[in-house]
Amino acid sequence: MDRLYHVLEAQQFDIDLIDAIFFTAQEMEQVVQHYGSNILNRRVMATLFYEPSTRTRLSFESAMTRLGGGVITTESAQEFSSAAKGETLEDTIRVVAGYSDVIVLRHYESGASNRAAAVAGIPVINAGDGAGQHPTQALLDLFTIQREIGRLQKITVALVGDLANGRTVRSLCYLLAKYEGVKMYFVAPEMVRMKDDIKEYLQRHQVPFEEVEDLHEVARQADVVYQTRIQKERFGERTGEYEQARGRYIVDRSVMDCMQEYAVVMHPLPRVDEIDPEVDADPRAAYFRQAHNGLYVRMALLRMILA
Amino acid sequence: MDRLYHVLEAQQFDIDLIDAIFFTAQEMEQVVQHYGSNILNRRVMATLFYEPSTRTRLSFESAMTRLGGGVITTESAQEFSSAAKGETLEDTIRVVAGYSDVIVLRHYESGASNRAAAVAGIPVINAGDGAGQHPTQALLDLFTIQREIGRLQKITVALVGDLANGRTVRSLCYLLAKYEGVKMYFVAPEMVRMKDDIKEYLQRHQVPFEEVEDLHEVARQADVVYQTRIQKERFGERTGEYEQARGRYIVDRSVMDCMQEYAVVMHPLPRVDEIDPEVDADPRAAYFRQAHNGLYVRMALLRMILA
Amino acid sequence: MDRLYHVLEAQQFDIDLIDAIFFTAQEMEQVVQHYGSNILNRRVMATLFYEPSTRTRLSFESAMTRLGGGVITTESAQEFSSAAKGETLEDTIRVVAGYSDVIVLRHYESGASNRAAAVAGIPVINAGDGAGQHPTQALLDLFTIQREIGRLQKITVALVGDLANGRTVRSLCYLLAKYEGVKMYFVAPEMVRMKDDIKEYLQRHQVPFEEVEDLHEVARQADVVYQTRIQKERFGERTGEYEQARGRYIVDRSVMDCMQEYAVVMHPLPRVDEIDPEVDADPRAAYFRQAHNGLYVRMALLRMILA
Repeated sequence: MDRLYHVLEAQQFDIDLIDAIFFTAQEMEQVVQHYGSNILNRRVMATLFYEPSTRTRLSFESAMTRLGGGVITTESAQEFSSAAKGETLEDTIRVVAGYSDVIVLRHYESGASNRAAAVAGIPVINAGDGAGQHPTQALLDLFTIQREIGRLQKITVALVGDLANGRTVRSLCYLLAKYEGVKMYFVAPEMVRMKDDIKEYLQRHQVPFEEVEDLHEVARQADVVYQTRIQKERFGERTGEYEQARGRYIVDRSVMDCMQEYAVVMHPLPRVDEIDPEVDADPRAAYFRQAHNGLYVRMALLRMILA
Repeated sequence: MDRLYHVLEAQQFDIDLIDAIFFTAQEMEQVVQHYGSNILNRRVMATLFYEPSTRTRLSFESAMTRLGGGVITTESAQEFSSAAKGETLEDTIRVVAGYSDVIVLRHYESGASNRAAAVAGIPVINAGDGAGQHPTQALLDLFTIQREIGRLQKITVALVGDLANGRTVRSLCYLLAKYEGVKMYFVAPEMVRMKDDIKEYLQRHQVPFEEVEDLHEVARQADVVYQTRIQKERFGERTGEYEQARGRYIVDRSVMDCMQEYAVVMHPLPRVDEIDPEVDADPRAAYFRQAHNGLYVRMALLRMILA
Repeated sequence: MDRLYHVLEAQQFDIDLIDAIFFTAQEMEQVVQHYGSNILNRRVMATLFYEPSTRTRLSFESAMTRLGGGVITTESAQEFSSAAKGETLEDTIRVVAGYSDVIVLRHYESGASNRAAAVAGIPVINAGDGAGQHPTQALLDLFTIQREIGRLQKITVALVGDLANGRTVRSLCYLLAKYEGVKMYFVAPEMVRMKDDIKEYLQRHQVPFEEVEDLHEVARQADVVYQTRIQKERFGERTGEYEQARGRYIVDRSVMDCMQEYAVVMHPLPRVDEIDPEVDADPRAAYFRQAHNGLYVRMALLRMILA
């Protein structure tokens, strides 16, 4: 089995390693159905969240617990920790590294995980760093596409919503670019369009993409409609722009009616109203299965890093 | 052994099931004295608290830990979780259900546990929902009465304090109504009297009750004086009314002097000043034993649901 | 092995008990290198933090987890717990004692741990109480000196920085006073000088000390330069005084150049800018090793108390 150390950004994974992770993730689903394993017994994972993300934190903590490991955690590192007393991230990491075998870090600054990895002396997993990356989310997204569509080559993916601020879609683009025959559509309100660095990356890797306006038209072509939330918290004071962006593209019954029978709707969650709840009952609504896949992928990563 | 699934409201339990829970709870006391069990090894409990309640949360988490299980937890779901980003409770539950084997939910809205149970796909335990119910508290209260008084039939219970807002006393009334020969006294300040729905429920089930004003007089009759805190947080801006209600009925030495030798004082805790600390040393002060019983009852519920 | 019960203040330890703790702590380092033990399997530690201290909390929780025990925790007891509803510390302790085998308490009031120990009925460990004590920090400091310098007798220790408000240095003074031939230097800005009670204690125990102004001069003499942070949070509104105190004594390259080859710099952490980061790479910078020693010492205490 390939050995992993840090998990910092989507670009670090090649196709072989991704295959190994997905193979292990499928084993992990079996492990969960048999109520877990003791393989990480006596290992300790520290979850340091400088930005709240209950979902991601609980997913990692469940993964570690299901494998028999222990967890030490801080739910709001920014507010309660020594950060409030002026300690640098590097100092905090050096200390916590002495208490644990792996650190899962969520931070509000892009690049924080790389800074942590540079001083930790133990593996660091990036659980989202500012507008930067969220590589474990991208891996679980890719794992979900593999399971739902049956392949990663020659797929058409429509990314919808906030493409400027969503680190999830950024990380996913890096991963999809590795597969042959992938085509992408970007469907975003004017003010949250996909940024140039990603577009240039795709061009450099000869991944065809198109920026389009008509979600219904794209829904007819896509294997995967990947909807995202317009992130209010990233607009700050510009509430007018937020209100304009939000509600521009909603996945509802009319969009589902355009989609192929084998296609799926995904979403990193949480959703607000960008997917109509009436879509939930449609078998092509894959977003809750996607969230559950996160558990298996994170178990696989922890096992490959620590076992 | 009876199998339990959701624990949502006091009314769901019949006498046979309550007997089975109490039998198991007594076994659990033995288990604790022998430093726990591994019976729930590898199972994961998620505690989602949208309203703070350190006591109830720690009690459930200790129960799961004592049985060898794992815990994933959020201490303040409302503030930190995806709820702040606008996610519905149903979506949160669907996701967390993928990470765990049972969800313990505390919520500020009445009916939240029923909504959670409808979508979870795994057992949900109501750990208090708004002004609604708190069924595990009611079970531990009943278990305490059984242990302290030796029976549940033919007992006289005085409920004192905030009977309008206390979900604890509401849930307890539903349970007590199942037993033959129970008589209740309600002793409450004018503005926080027992609500009509409970009184009608008791009338329908032919449980005699009386609303009275003299705590000392009632203390002479009662097997159980169940004191409750006037909940400042439920009065909002009406601080004048709060100050009036608070201090109207205090359990102190003079009340204890009226009580029978075999009778007990109970309280769901936390208390402020509605029980004088000088009462703590009296062997009839059962409230700390009552709190400890909560551990055994919650262990019993988790075991019956998960084992 | 000596049996411990409460850990409340540095004065409670005699040299024999300290030796036993340090012997066990060294074993614990071996245990960690072999990924922990199951010796505290099924035991439950409650960490109640009324004042945030992520570092100390995670250190204790890692210690318990490494020994196979379980943890129930509240990260911000003051804000979220029943304390907000007006419950006394004593009542909280009585209840939590029913859920756990040992309580680790951090509190903003001096003497809180003693109050807790008086009612708990189970062991209480003081993890810092207001301006009072922080005995486990003092033990890990002493353990670090022993390991780094090779002895505790006949050492010269310079305590630098906020000597008035730092409970860490207070607790350390009590411990150092037990050893023969210890000499101390106090190097503090005017407004945060060592308080009289400690100076009287040292005089009574015939421990020589000197209050001096020149850090570089002292650095030439000292086996240990123990730097501390000027604690902004203890100055309140007096920000002018804070700014004056802060920056008065910085450990930087020029101080290191004065120090002996075998001497070390210690710091309880978190640091802000009172140690220049360029010092980190110097092998005499012992502060991160010191933090890691905290894990071993706390494991030793938990084992001696619970096993």
